[in-house]
Amino acid sequence: MVIDDPEIVAEVEAAFAAYERALVGNDVAALEGLFNDDPRTLRYGATENLYGMDEIRAFRRGRSPQGLARTLERTVITTYGRDHAVANTLFRRETAPGRIGRQSQTWVRLPEGWRVVAAHVSVIDDV
Amino acid sequence: MVIDDPEIVAEVEAAFAAYERALVGNDVAALEGLFNDDPRTLRYGATENLYGMDEIRAFRRGRSPQGLARTLERTVITTYGRDHAVANTLFRRETAPGRIGRQSQTWVRLPEGWRVVAAHVSVIDDV
Repeated sequence: MVIDDPEIVAEVEAAFAAYERALVGNDVAALEGLFNDDPRTLRYGATENLYGMDEIRAFRRGRSPQGLARTLERTVITTYGRDHAVANTLFRRETAPGRIGRQSQTWVRLPEGWRVVAAHVSVIDDV
Repeated sequence: MVIDDPEIVAEVEAAFAAYERALVGNDVAALEGLFNDDPRTLRYGATENLYGMDEIRAFRRGRSPQGLARTLERTVITTYGRDHAVANTLFRRETAPGRIGRQSQTWVRLPEGWRVVAAHVSVIDDV
């Protein structure tokens, strides 16, 4: 298995960037489209545990569009073979000084394209 | 790509169970052995952000062996193809009432066996 094949990394970087644009812009349709529409898809969020795409959709659609702007730090995308990748990043929001966010995603290439199959977001004190 | 091939799921379940035993027993060598020994391996912990196996090792070796016992809830392991999987679980500790932990792992089958390439652990209020 080739790790970090440049061609595959570029594909996942593009998908990751599309996700970030959708998140900051609260483009709910785009965000939903980048997650695998499946009961096994899972997202642990900053304050909620969402099992399956139905729960993820309900959360997205009920979310406030305010205060989503953020800056990323130490983003690392690593690909394992041609169809699997992990993307991890730290993030900060001006509205949350002294706190640091962490976002982890596992991406899989499905017939319809690259999709997130599991995600975990949490925010801790920046010590 | 076959999702949740029973043979592959059984393999990852065994690796996940071995990790849980090592964690609760603070078997640091076993814990380290189940992570991919690579600078790209990454672990966001409850209060720390560890980039690369060197940082992960230093954290493990300095950790208190007290209070690691926990019970798991809603564990979901999903395999994508023969060599990739995600394992997600909630957990509770008697020492932290009213709080719920979340542990996410991405596993990859490498020549030496199944290894965690990215992990994220966080603890939030159980609302």
